[in-house]
Amino acid sequence: MHIGNYLGALKNWVRMIDQYDCIFCIVDYHAITIEYNPADMQRRILNAAAVNIAAGLDPERCIIFVQSYVPEHTELAWILNTVTPMGHLERMTQFKDKSKQHRENINAGLFTYPVLQAADILLYHGEAVPVGEDQVQHIELAREIARKFNMRYGETFPDPVEVLSDAPRIMGLDGKTKMSKSLGNYISLVETPESIWKKLSTAVTDENRKRRTDPGNPDICNLFTLHKYFSRKEQIDRINTVCRTAEIGCIECKKILSDNIVEALAPIRMRYEQLISDPDYLADILHAGAKKCRDIAVNTMTDVKKKMGLR
Amino acid sequence: MHIGNYLGALKNWVRMIDQYDCIFCIVDYHAITIEYNPADMQRRILNAAAVNIAAGLDPERCIIFVQSYVPEHTELAWILNTVTPMGHLERMTQFKDKSKQHRENINAGLFTYPVLQAADILLYHGEAVPVGEDQVQHIELAREIARKFNMRYGETFPDPVEVLSDAPRIMGLDGKTKMSKSLGNYISLVETPESIWKKLSTAVTDENRKRRTDPGNPDICNLFTLHKYFSRKEQIDRINTVCRTAEIGCIECKKILSDNIVEALAPIRMRYEQLISDPDYLADILHAGAKKCRDIAVNTMTDVKKKMGLR
Repeated sequence: MHIGNYLGALKNWVRMIDQYDCIFCIVDYHAITIEYNPADMQRRILNAAAVNIAAGLDPERCIIFVQSYVPEHTELAWILNTVTPMGHLERMTQFKDKSKQHRENINAGLFTYPVLQAADILLYHGEAVPVGEDQVQHIELAREIARKFNMRYGETFPDPVEVLSDAPRIMGLDGKTKMSKSLGNYISLVETPESIWKKLSTAVTDENRKRRTDPGNPDICNLFTLHKYFSRKEQIDRINTVCRTAEIGCIECKKILSDNIVEALAPIRMRYEQLISDPDYLADILHAGAKKCRDIAVNTMTDVKKKMGLR
Repeated sequence: MHIGNYLGALKNWVRMIDQYDCIFCIVDYHAITIEYNPADMQRRILNAAAVNIAAGLDPERCIIFVQSYVPEHTELAWILNTVTPMGHLERMTQFKDKSKQHRENINAGLFTYPVLQAADILLYHGEAVPVGEDQVQHIELAREIARKFNMRYGETFPDPVEVLSDAPRIMGLDGKTKMSKSLGNYISLVETPESIWKKLSTAVTDENRKRRTDPGNPDICNLFTLHKYFSRKEQIDRINTVCRTAEIGCIECKKILSDNIVEALAPIRMRYEQLISDPDYLADILHAGAKKCRDIAVNTMTDVKKKMGLR
């Protein structure tokens, strides 16, 4: 989890907790559709839980759990497979992209991934699904699957609708592409102060500003965008002026940003460190979440099976 | 279930009970991959259970259960999806055939059907799978899926191997195509004596024998094949002679066959009527079977998840 994910998605989720009954799912059964290291999986799961909780997904006010703890996800996915036309899955952009990325491992899990995703949502009668632009096609498919099921077996699932964040996508520290873990152009949500400064000190700013005495242009400076999220209004206003007149240099400007990011992330990092050092407590949270989910899931499956004549 | 299924498959299964620890699964989660009537499903399930038990799948000596009672089938199927190359599924002859038959409903369940079938087998570490010729390709795939899983996550599943029956395929009463329910050219395993006679009396024999006085040829008479399964040796030998000399007519020959089929099916039909009139008892058998299966399935899934780093 990096600050791009945080600003683009997680911050939005934290807000949604107050407006909806929220369920957040760590999707290990999706993760296995590409090659991974089994020895690393539990660490990844606990880490995802710790970061998300630390960043605001308070388990007292929402449900957070691990997908594979609730086998009804895969059971409903099988059922939904039977109402999902092949042609619809073949059209999914993400499948086409991932097939190109993983040519040596184009498997049936990759192909039916959106059906499991539909099950993740419909199992809880999900209505609002916070996603990025790249997932809108999958939510549309989930909606179509819900309707197909309802049409064939009777009204069961509400229409799930995508909730897009209004946050613009955050560029990486290279200023060239979206912030992403695999590209290494990110600041982690639990990055140490030293590392934050180290990464920012080499981050790309306005590339036309070659010398300290050249005036800069905040409008095309990637770090100015980050200021807008992490700095105080008077700091932002001042930088917007003094950068253009070369009264402030990039180093000084970066120092302000670094201090503000460090300050903003400090409580998240502290909470994260507490959580990650207590895996038993984390496991308890995840199991308690799964327990609540199973209660809902079992009810849904009873209804689904009854309508299908399977009980 | 008709006498073609019985002679071609079920009779073989009954024999296997003495040689193996047998598990028989009523595959409702496969049945839903084509259009069906939900209101009819429970009756179909109970009927399948009753016929199979009546014909010899003694629940005291083997396990018989309903697939959807053990959700681990779909859970393992999801996992196996992720090690099943798309190209392998696209090659499946049954998928191609069914896609032609159900053009309006080519769904992802139909496509991933063989993966659920692999899960049905591997969940119980199945080694010997009695199937017809048309299913050999699916068992080969199950074997390949088992190997792929073992290769990636460590030795887990034995190689499942197909067990082909030595019974020839039984032709329908029209003498033209394989006996099949959908073609209406069958004698049910629980057909009444009256109906057995009615169906046989109009069944096609040697078509060259136009009049009672014409000699017949048992070698090309479809009903003579049935005599071989249902009549006594001296009856078979006699018919083989007196048909060729026109000493016996088709009606008389059919009467002998009818009496023998009625006699052979009588105990099956009686047991079937007992079972089907007591759905609670049948349900108890199926739930007890599912309970035994779940104990095995849960163990398998614990091992599978551990190896995959999911627990």
